Formats: sequence, structure tokens, C-alpha cells
Amino acid sequence: MITPEQLQNIHRYWQAANYLSAGQIYLQNNPLLRTPLEAAHIKPRLLGHWGTSPGLSFIYAHLNRLIKETDANILYICGPGHGAPAIVANTYLEGSYTEIYPEVSMNEKGMKKLFRQFSTPGGIPSHVSAHTPGSIHEGGELGYALVHAFGAAFDNPDLLVACVVGDGEAETAPLEGSWKSLSFLNPVRDGAVLPILHLNGYKIASPTVLARKTDAELEALFTGHGYEVLFVEGSDPLPMHRAMAAALDKAYARISALQQQARTANAPIIKGWPLIILRSPKGWTGPKEWHHQPIENSFRSHQVPLTAVKTDPDQLRLMEAWMRSYAPETLFDENGSLLPELQDLAPRGDKRMGMLARSNGGRVLKELKLPDFKKYAVNVAHPGTVEAESTRNFGNYLRDVFELNEDNRNFRLFCPDETASNRLQAVFEKTTRCFLEERQHTDDHLSPDGRVMEVLSEHLCEGWLEGYLLTGRHGLFSCYEAFITIIDSMFSQYAKWIKTSKELPWRKPVASLNYLLTSHSWRQDHNGYSHQGPGFIDTVINKKSNVTRIYLPPDANTLLAVMHHCFSSKDYANLVVAGKQPELQWLTIEEAVEHCARGASVWEWAGNAADTHPDVILACAGDVPTLEAVAAVAILREQLPELKVRLVNVVDLMALSPEHYHPHGLSNEQFTEIFTNDTDVVFAFHGYVRIIHDLVHGRPDPSRFHVRGYMEEGTTTTPFDMTVLNNISRYQLAMEAVKRAPCMAGKSDPFNAYCTQKLEAHNAYISTYFDDLPEIKNWKWPY
Amino acid sequence: MITPEQLQNIHRYWQAANYLSAGQIYLQNNPLLRTPLEAAHIKPRLLGHWGTSPGLSFIYAHLNRLIKETDANILYICGPGHGAPAIVANTYLEGSYTEIYPEVSMNEKGMKKLFRQFSTPGGIPSHVSAHTPGSIHEGGELGYALVHAFGAAFDNPDLLVACVVGDGEAETAPLEGSWKSLSFLNPVRDGAVLPILHLNGYKIASPTVLARKTDAELEALFTGHGYEVLFVEGSDPLPMHRAMAAALDKAYARISALQQQARTANAPIIKGWPLIILRSPKGWTGPKEWHHQPIENSFRSHQVPLTAVKTDPDQLRLMEAWMRSYAPETLFDENGSLLPELQDLAPRGDKRMGMLARSNGGRVLKELKLPDFKKYAVNVAHPGTVEAESTRNFGNYLRDVFELNEDNRNFRLFCPDETASNRLQAVFEKTTRCFLEERQHTDDHLSPDGRVMEVLSEHLCEGWLEGYLLTGRHGLFSCYEAFITIIDSMFSQYAKWIKTSKELPWRKPVASLNYLLTSHSWRQDHNGYSHQGPGFIDTVINKKSNVTRIYLPPDANTLLAVMHHCFSSKDYANLVVAGKQPELQWLTIEEAVEHCARGASVWEWAGNAADTHPDVILACAGDVPTLEAVAAVAILREQLPELKVRLVNVVDLMALSPEHYHPHGLSNEQFTEIFTNDTDVVFAFHGYVRIIHDLVHGRPDPSRFHVRGYMEEGTTTTPFDMTVLNNISRYQLAMEAVKRAPCMAGKSDPFNAYCTQKLEAHNAYISTYFDDLPEIKNWKWPY
Repeated sequence: MITPEQLQNIHRYWQAANYLSAGQIYLQNNPLLRTPLEAAHIKPRLLGHWGTSPGLSFIYAHLNRLIKETDANILYICGPGHGAPAIVANTYLEGSYTEIYPEVSMNEKGMKKLFRQFSTPGGIPSHVSAHTPGSIHEGGELGYALVHAFGAAFDNPDLLVACVVGDGEAETAPLEGSWKSLSFLNPVRDGAVLPILHLNGYKIASPTVLARKTDAELEALFTGHGYEVLFVEGSDPLPMHRAMAAALDKAYARISALQQQARTANAPIIKGWPLIILRSPKGWTGPKEWHHQPIENSFRSHQVPLTAVKTDPDQLRLMEAWMRSYAPETLFDENGSLLPELQDLAPRGDKRMGMLARSNGGRVLKELKLPDFKKYAVNVAHPGTVEAESTRNFGNYLRDVFELNEDNRNFRLFCPDETASNRLQAVFEKTTRCFLEERQHTDDHLSPDGRVMEVLSEHLCEGWLEGYLLTGRHGLFSCYEAFITIIDSMFSQYAKWIKTSKELPWRKPVASLNYLLTSHSWRQDHNGYSHQGPGFIDTVINKKSNVTRIYLPPDANTLLAVMHHCFSSKDYANLVVAGKQPELQWLTIEEAVEHCARGASVWEWAGNAADTHPDVILACAGDVPTLEAVAAVAILREQLPELKVRLVNVVDLMALSPEHYHPHGLSNEQFTEIFTNDTDVVFAFHGYVRIIHDLVHGRPDPSRFHVRGYMEEGTTTTPFDMTVLNNISRYQLAMEAVKRAPCMAGKSDPFNAYCTQKLEAHNAYISTYFDDLPEIKNWKWPY
Repeated sequence: MITPEQLQNIHRYWQAANYLSAGQIYLQNNPLLRTPLEAAHIKPRLLGHWGTSPGLSFIYAHLNRLIKETDANILYICGPGHGAPAIVANTYLEGSYTEIYPEVSMNEKGMKKLFRQFSTPGGIPSHVSAHTPGSIHEGGELGYALVHAFGAAFDNPDLLVACVVGDGEAETAPLEGSWKSLSFLNPVRDGAVLPILHLNGYKIASPTVLARKTDAELEALFTGHGYEVLFVEGSDPLPMHRAMAAALDKAYARISALQQQARTANAPIIKGWPLIILRSPKGWTGPKEWHHQPIENSFRSHQVPLTAVKTDPDQLRLMEAWMRSYAPETLFDENGSLLPELQDLAPRGDKRMGMLARSNGGRVLKELKLPDFKKYAVNVAHPGTVEAESTRNFGNYLRDVFELNEDNRNFRLFCPDETASNRLQAVFEKTTRCFLEERQHTDDHLSPDGRVMEVLSEHLCEGWLEGYLLTGRHGLFSCYEAFITIIDSMFSQYAKWIKTSKELPWRKPVASLNYLLTSHSWRQDHNGYSHQGPGFIDTVINKKSNVTRIYLPPDANTLLAVMHHCFSSKDYANLVVAGKQPELQWLTIEEAVEHCARGASVWEWAGNAADTHPDVILACAGDVPTLEAVAAVAILREQLPELKVRLVNVVDLMALSPEHYHPHGLSNEQFTEIFTNDTDVVFAFHGYVRIIHDLVHGRPDPSRFHVRGYMEEGTTTTPFDMTVLNNISRYQLAMEAVKRAPCMAGKSDPFNAYCTQKLEAHNAYISTYFDDLPEIKNWKWPY
């Protein structure tokens, strides 16, 4: 039972945090208010969100107490992102901040630095970010707090993730979609998530939906999701401290009991996990009103509650009174250090939430054990004659990754219900789909212990994986290409996190974020126009070049080589797009390794210009464009043997990039060796053409690159017809090549007639037989 | 009370729909099974989703009965997208399909066409699409059924939107975020949404979370969301028909009662709206099992339940037995027409769900009444000397759009709680924020009648607006640029819908989808690196050029001209990115109109090369890049008056595009007139540079374009510092211009030293004062 004295101390600790929060928003000097506050002490630009901060600190202080009493390992996920003033204040009070950033020392000088760095040039942002000790969660774009929390809890049986969800964030679709993560968390092997829904009434300007619901409605809603709701409601600090302490004790006891029960019986429990709803005033303890307009408990305290303190002496006085209401002189000693009896309230060492090792995932990362990828190679005795399904073949490798890392429990596959559809079903020889709700005899490879996370939500797949990676584990997101842009903005935020964390020496490298996209745009014969597109490449390529990698393996062996490399890498986002359908194979595993190392190479066997300057170059990136480009070369060699053609394949897209922009960029010498300085290049690309137009900008004579790619044409149709409709079929590429070869000037008509006749035959055939011509379906490399 | 005979007829109607669904998936001939089924009758490629289809048809048949009895106007939204076999079958049975596509006649010949067109080249896709009569909802990427339903119901008081949500879709984040739309629907002025949650157990391969919840849990969940749940559960057809009819009667009566009550008292009611949960077997009435593996009621019936019918005679027999189990000879007459007593079950004319006028929004579209935008113009007596906030000024215009269209009730603003933050608050002089939950005295401009839809969910804003537009109304989505990529994939799907509907003469043009992005990447001084980026431009530009328009108005008057144009347009997606901060104004309203008409023009007043060939061109697109480019010109003119500089501003980004690609593309003559053939261009761009690299590809000597744009640098800092960190500040642009001007070769050192010293002074100043230098903040155009 918590004593009144303990409560009183927690209250003082909270006051200290609130004081530091306000100080960060306002002060550039006089941090301890040793002298009367003057306009000169106020920062010129006032930034930061006060509204959520007192609530966040309230929770932090109480979690400290829980850790001290129970020795729990708690990860604090702060959903209300702009609440950085609170989280920074608390990590400073507990000493974590100074340990990581010694210049922000625990005295008056350091406190001034703490205040000045906040939301100022060269300082730290106003939201929780990679800079913030103890955080794995960027507080910019809202929606992902809870899904990150679950990702962190997976395979961390001794971890309790306390996840604060603001009522603004609770309104976002990804957050609402995250509550069901309970149905995928197995308490026998996983840790626990304690959601703390913080209802303070308003988002920026409008009230929030959940804040205006009755307790009965909220209870019904969350009971439906599987939670047991504990309410902590009010505004009077001391009763609220008592209620919060009781709620946390109850929640912790319940979690421990459920975990023990589940682990003893080895029988998962998914219902009745606690959830705390904290209703407290927005801008709690802040200024009450200004000119008869309420501030506390209204939308006016969302950001900076008093904005004219630098110019309006009355506001300045009100602000001073507010900050002095925390009585800093009773909290900090003469040096500006927190008083010892308050320091004692925080946990020690790595138990401090700002120092939890798993919040800096690289600290606890175990290397992924990988099999020898060469032993899964497809035997390619001759290029273009053997068929294989690239992802199915890779599935064998992936199965063994599961086996090798079974004991470490640090690898999962995340997929929106497409594992088998994406032909990765070999993994089910070693693991299953994870599902905690009721199971039936009609279910397929389903159990609570599965390491394949299938949920029909790209948001959950992405968010779980992000949380899993940032706490030091490994994973793969396998997705239809069509649907991955659902998480465009999540990816962007994650890439920005990695870019930032690389700039912080104390953040240790984590495993790369790996995407394997298949069922791609060129083989959406089953689906249709409405949901296909290679736009994720555009999203990825726009992010920092020290983070992003993009691979388009054209066959099974290059896919193996690429994935093996991606699994070994750190701190990257690796985007891999590959085919799942049976398709011709081009390279032996040795050739594939060499090709991947180069990024782009001339396929000598395909062209007929080995000993001479080519008349025209056919280049390709992506499996379907590669097939069409190689077939185009075969047609040209057969029909126009005098034409000297070179074929170039690009597997590492960023190889095309200028060297100074991306570390994988070919030097100008290498680029010229492959593409010459002057020969026209007909480029068949998996994605939208503009990417190639950009990548070759700055290379010698970019105008000679004639790019064809996905141009938003074609709905449910045959595979080859997709290429025809998008102008990238072998015949269309071959005609373009002839047009671009100077030696063919004035001689192209018969060849064009030949190709046009072939295309007409195709159109006639598919409209009768709904299928591709046998000569297309059964085509093989003829040389 | 429904009679047994009625039920029996509904059952037969359902059998007919199921027969046609299976026929579409499998048959290319022998549509009425007049002869024994042969392999040759089977299509070569079997596509389509059987699993969901019987349930969708079951609902459709019962809604027909409800319409016949009540004369209700019902819009059917089919969430399970690949259920097109069912929706196409039902619109065919009711005659809508043939009315729109006469070649698919209501006889044997037409039935054969119906079957052959499904999922075949040149035919229709396997998901509900723009081709489908009565649909406003693309069934490709899941998640948006319910939000589209609410968008359609807004301001349609006599409309009932029946929205089928599959249990797969129910697992997506956007769908889970949509239930709360009830909190924004005002039954006094809006129609009703009747969600029908269809739990058939499985998604592609895994069970769904909701299907495995107990009824008690489901009831709690949806009660919490504000619904009253009606369960219809089972597999035996006749009791299920009875239960469904009773549930629909009850739901309809309840909706009518609540609406009447709300409208009589003019007092909105938000709790207790009915929701039907239909639990029925996946692949209901289909083959029961194959080789002792269950098919019906298992994931194996998700797509094509028997896949080898063309090659396996046993499967062919089973399939034939399945199709004959519907007894087609008792449903269709000798000609292959539905028997008259069954035809009678469907509504007539525009009451048929396939013919509902509002499902083809252009049919009911009323033109938006627009004020004379010129009367809102900012007075710009001299360029670069007056400041204004572009979006705040536009807010005045927008306010009057609300006023002019108040009687038509066909315009709304959708915004994730940022209307005031985006400086559009003038609209609150004429309308309010819409909110149906409890209101408190601290709320600001909030009422159930508001036409500003503020919800902290970009998904809901986008989806509501899409549903609103496709049912023939107008709207604007105002959003922070940082957060709009949350709906990248929704936008893509919508753009594809518009592209497709433009190809269908019977689909009438709808109002354009208009985005106004502000709080953009260059002025995220408040926020930080983690959530900023101009990537939405990349998403939009990749879509079909007959759909997309992208505008970057540099000041208030160009914004007015652009928005006025966008509001007048049809069937486009207009992306507008504009500043909200006080900033220098460049053009009078007349100049703005002319500039917008050209798309890109030389700003003669800014340069000093009016009478001569320029030594270098500074080009810009976007408000901040424009300011920096103009300031760079001023620096060059002052420091290096001998250098002849031209300034070009691009307001319509697609003007840069080759003419043949985009209708706004400048001809080569126009392009050359502006950019010359050979002068180097230093281009300051709002977005990622690669877009400009692409757009100028194919123009004379693209290598001379040196583009600077957002390069993922800068976190919370001053506005000018953002430009410095991203290499686009006036000094950096000016140095680049000097480097690129041939006449400056070997003479640039003193100028570079001057600029470098300025940049150093900037750095020193902000690190001391956290603010931009007065000479930067107060800069005005000096000429």
C-alpha cells in the first residue's frame, strides 16, 4: 500500500517534470527563476506542446514507482508525439539524459542547456524522436504507438510496454486498427502491452470522439477488443495520484497473474488484459484562463498556452506565476540538481526507462544466423531455358532461416495474409501462422506459437515489424506490390528515424527493414488496374541515400543473393521486388553473385556486340522487363543479324545513380563502360519511367535513354498483354531499338511490319482464347 | 410479414445469382448447361472470388425486397471487392446491366457474353469497379467501404447506404477507423448507413479476427461504437432467408424511427443505429469438399474453389453437379431470360440498385456556385514588398463558397483538425465544425450542422470526400503536406477510378478531387524532420495525365486563381500546395490569372535580361523556392550587375512536361522561349529534385537543368535555415548560378566569398538568437 508520503513525493517529482516541460517551451535563460522573469529570458519563437505534457509526466512518475517496487522492465511508448517536453524532462530527472548527453548536466548550467536546445536551431525537435533516450517511437505522424508497442513486446517475455495513446491519436485509423494486436500476442512467449488511453478532451482544435464517449461506451468498446478497463479520472492531483497508483498496481498484478497462468499451463490467454483510461485536463496545472477564455482543460492549451509572454507583460506575469506554482526552489538544490529524496524515486541504471537496453535495439541485437544461400540455387545450365518461381525457391532459404534462429526467437515474417499466395509456404515446414483467437479444424498451419504474422493490415505488419526491429530483432515484410503504398508514410517516418539515429553515436545499428514485394504490377493478371502500381519505389528512392537500397532481381538466383545480403545488413531499408510466377532463369548462382556485386552489368551471352561498339543498347530492370528485353534482343538477332545489340541488366537500381549521390552509384567510368557515352539506350523498367529519367540525369547525354515502364494501363488480362498495353513488350522494345539505331535509318519498315503483325496476332489470339499465344508462353532463349 | 412463397422466390432469385456468379468464373460456353459440361466450355484461366459471392447476392436479393416494399433509395456498397461475380450477376438479373451494356442481353447469347467478359482480356475485372452499374466503390484495395458509405450518406437525407463489410476488410486499419463516422453523421440532414458485417470466417488463408470473436464480444465492440447489433447466423438457406428479412425489416424500421424522431425534434441522435452481422459459410452453396478437404466454409473457397476442372474430369463432374444444383432450367426460360415471376422481385427503373442516379454522381451534380475570385485579391502595387498569408486570404473566398452553396447543401471541407491551423478560419463565419457527440462550452465553432469535417484521420477525410464526390457533390481536402501521404494508396485507387470512369460514356463527370496542402515541408519550423516531405507530388504525378493536375502557387493571388479553376473543373485530381505563413506577394490578380493560364512564365520585372539572351536562368516552383530564387536574383543584380539573369516561375508543374504526355505541357517552342535552348537553368523546386529531372527529360539539353529541392535535411529550425540546410537558400542558388554562367568562368571567387560570409553570419546568428537575421526576415524586393 502506497503511503501518503510516497504520494506526496511522487507529486513533487511530477511538479519538477512539469516545471522542466514549461521551461523547455519558454525559457532561454534564468532556468531556476532565481530572478524575476523578464522578457529577455523568453525564447524568440515559442514551440512545443504543453497540453499533453503534464499527463505524460504523471504517467512517467507513476511507472517509476512501479519499476522501483517490482523491478519490472518497462518500455515507455509515448504516442502524443509533441509531448517531448515531458519525456525529455523525465529522462533528465532520472539522469539518463545527462548520461547520454553529458553537456546537459544535472545542474543549473545543464538545465539552461536543456531549455535552450528544445525546438531551437541545432537543438532537438519538439516531438519525441531518435534523440530521446528510451524511445523507439517517433512522435511525428500519429497512429503507430500501439502497434510499435506490440512489436516490441513480441518475443520479449520479461518486457512490459507501457503505451500512452492520446485521444487525438486514438482517432486515427492505424491506431484503431491496432487494438486487435491482442489477438496475435502470445503471453507464453511474448511480453505484455499496457495501453494507457489518455483522454484529455481535445486534439488541435476540436474535441475528440473518445473523450466525449461515456465510460460505459468506452468499457463496452474495449471489452469487445478483449481488454479489461481501469478508469483513472479527475483533476485534483492527490486523489489522482492515489487512483493512478492503484490502477497501475492492479494492472501489473493482473498482467503478472495472466502471464503466470498462461506460462504455467502453456496455454495462451487473450482476454481480460488491462487497459487504463486516464481522463485528465488538457494542459493540467497550467494557466487556468486568459481574458476569461479557459486555457486549462480546453483546446487552447494544446500547444503553447500563452503565446505573447515576450511582448505582453501581463502574460509574462501569469506565466511566471504558473512556473513558480511548481515551487522549483523546493525541488532543486542550490546547484540546480534535483533534491536527493526526489532522485530516489527514479529507478537505477538500465531499469530507468530512458536507459532500457531494448529501447536502443542495437545494444541487444543478436546476429541473424543465415544458411549458405548457394545451396538453394536453381541449376541454370543455359540461360533462358529453365523455369522457376523465384519467391518459392527463396521460401526454402527462408524456412531454414527460421530453423537456424529458432532458439534465439528473434526472427519473424510479417505478411498481410499472403504468405502462401506469395509462394513462401515452405516456411510452414518450420513454423506456423500466429493466431490466438479460437482455432478450428479447417485452419491451415495456424497456432499461437507461429512466427508468421498474418493480419489483413499492412499498417500492423509494418508497425509490428518496426517495433520488433527497433528493439533489436530481425524480420521481413512480404507484401503484394499493389498494397505496400498503404504504408508509404509509415515507411517515410521510419527511414527518417534511421537517418537520424545513424547521426547519434549512442544509437547502435539495428537490423535492416526488409521488404519483399511480389504479385507485382506486371503480373496482376488476377487482380486488376485499380490496385496495382510500382509507386513504392518512388517513395523509397526519395529518402536519404545512406538508408535506402532498391533491388529488382530478375530471377531466382539473383533473388537469393540479394536477400542474403539484405538479411546481413544493418540500418538500411531494403526494398526487393521479385516475381512469384514460373519464369525463365538467366544466371547461375555464381553469375548472380557477381551481377549483384556490380549492381548492373552487360549480359554478354544475350547480345551480339561483344567485340564491337553496339548500335543500340537494350537495358532492363525487373523480372518481366528483363524477359521482354532479352526476347527483344533475340528477335533483333534473328530478324536483323547485322544490328549490333548489347543487353544490360540492372539489379541494384541505385547503381544508376551518380556516385556522389548514392554509395552504390557507378562511377562515370563504370557507367560509360556499360552504357557507352553515346549509344542510344532503350530501357525497359519495372516502375514508372520518371525514376530512370532522374537517375541518368547528369550522366553523359541523358537524352539517349528512352525509357518504358508501367504507364497505368491494363486491367485483368494475360501476362503478355500487360506488357503490350504498357508498351514494353518484346516487339515494342525491338521496334524502339531499331528506331534508335543510327545504322537502321530508313530500313526499319519491314521489321516494324513484322512486329506489328505479331502484335496483331497476339490481339486476335487473346480475344478468342483468353490466353497468350503458345509462341509467347513457351518462348525460350534460342541461342 | 413475409410469406413463405415470397421467401421461396427470394431463394430462387438467389440461386439464379449464384448460378451466374459461378458461370462468370468458369464458363466460356454452354451458359445454360443445355448440354453436358465439357472441358472446352471452361475458360483457360480461372479467375474471380467465389467465397464472398453467395453472401453478397443473399444481401442483394433481400435489399431488393426491402426496396420493393418501402420504395427506399438504397445504394449498395460492396466492400468485398472481388465479389464482382455477385454484383454483376445481380445488376444483370435486375436489368441494369443490359440497359447500360445492351450487348450483354438478357438471353442466352447475352449470358454467354456476361460469362466470357468476366476477368478476360478486354473484359471486366474480377472486382467491383467503375464498370459495375450502381457502384461508387472500387473493390481493389480494401478498407474504404464504410467511409465511402458515410461520404455518400452526407447531405442525402433520403438515401440509405447498405454497406457490406467483409471480415477480411474489417481487419484493415482504415475500416476499423471508419466505425466512428457515426459521430459525424447528422440524421436531421444526412441519410443513413446500414453496415452489414459479413463474417464468413477467412481472409485469403487465415481466419479473421472478428469471425472468431463471440457474439457477446462483437456486441460489446459495436455497442461501444454506437451501433445496435442484429445477428443473422447460420447456413440453412430458408431459416437464413427468414432471419435476414426480419433483420432488414427491423433495421429499416429503426432507421426510419430514429430519423423521424431526429428530424421532428431537429435534434440529432447518434446512438443505437442498427448494424447487421451476417455469419454465413464462405463459399456458401458451393462444393462441399474435394479429396476429403473441406471447401465450403473454409479458406479453400476464397477464390476459385475447384481449379483443375479443365484438366480433371472428376472435378469437372463435381463442378457441373454444383452448378446444376441451382436448377437453372427452373430459373431461366427457353431464351435464357429470367422467369417473369423472378424478374418481379427486382425494383423498377432508378430504384434498382444498379441504376440509382446517385451512384453515377455526374447525373445529379449541381454546379458549384463560385464568387468572383478577383474581389478577394491582395493589392500588390509592387512585387515583393507586401506580405500576405495565402491560405488565410483564400479562406475568405472559401467562406463565400459556403454561403453561395448553402441552399444546395453540396459542399464540404474535409480536414484533419487543421482548418484554423491552416488559416482557413474565415469559413467559421458561415459554418462550423461538424460533431455529433456531446458538446461543451469550451468547444470552438462546433455543431451537428457544421460543414467542416474535422476528424484526426486522413483516411476518413479522404474516404468521406471520395464518397461525397462520387455521389455528385463538391469538396476540398485541406491537409498538412507532411501527413497527406498517409492516403497515398487511397488517392491512387481514386485516380484509377476516375481514369476508368472517363472511358465509360455512361459515367457522367463528377467534381474534381481537390487538395490544398499547406504547413508544407519548407515551413515545418514548428514540427520537425520526422514528418515532413513533399512526396505526395510524386504519388500524384505518377497517375494518368488526363486525371492529374499539380499547382504550386507562389503567392495569394495565384492561389486564388488556381483554386477557382480547380473548383470549376471536373474529373480531375487537383493537387495544390501553398504557404500559410506571411510571405511576400509577387503578382497582381491580373498577372496571376495570366501566369496561371501560361503555367510557367518569365518574370520580366525580376530579371535583367529582358532585351538579351540570359547568361543564366533561375527557375522556381513553390512559394519558398520562389522567394529564395527571387532573392538570389536580387543578390546577383546587386553584386554582379554585368550578369544577365532571367527568372522563371512555374505555377502549373505539368507545364514542364512534354506536350504529348500531359495536356498542360508546353510546346517545344513555348518551352524554348522560356528556358532557351542552351542556357543553364538553376531550378529551385518545392519537391524532390527527381521530378524536375524527369519532366525536362526530352527537352533540349536536359543536362543544363541543375535542380535543388527538398533533400531530407533540417529538423525544427528557422524558416531560412531550412533552405540553407537543403542547399536552396538565396546564397546557395546565387553561387550555383554564377558557377553555371559561362561569362563568370574564373571570376566567381569574390562572389562565393561574399555568399559564404553571409551564410556564416546566418549560422552564427541563429545559434545565438534562435531566429533568422533581420536582413533575411525583413528582406523585400529592392527594385
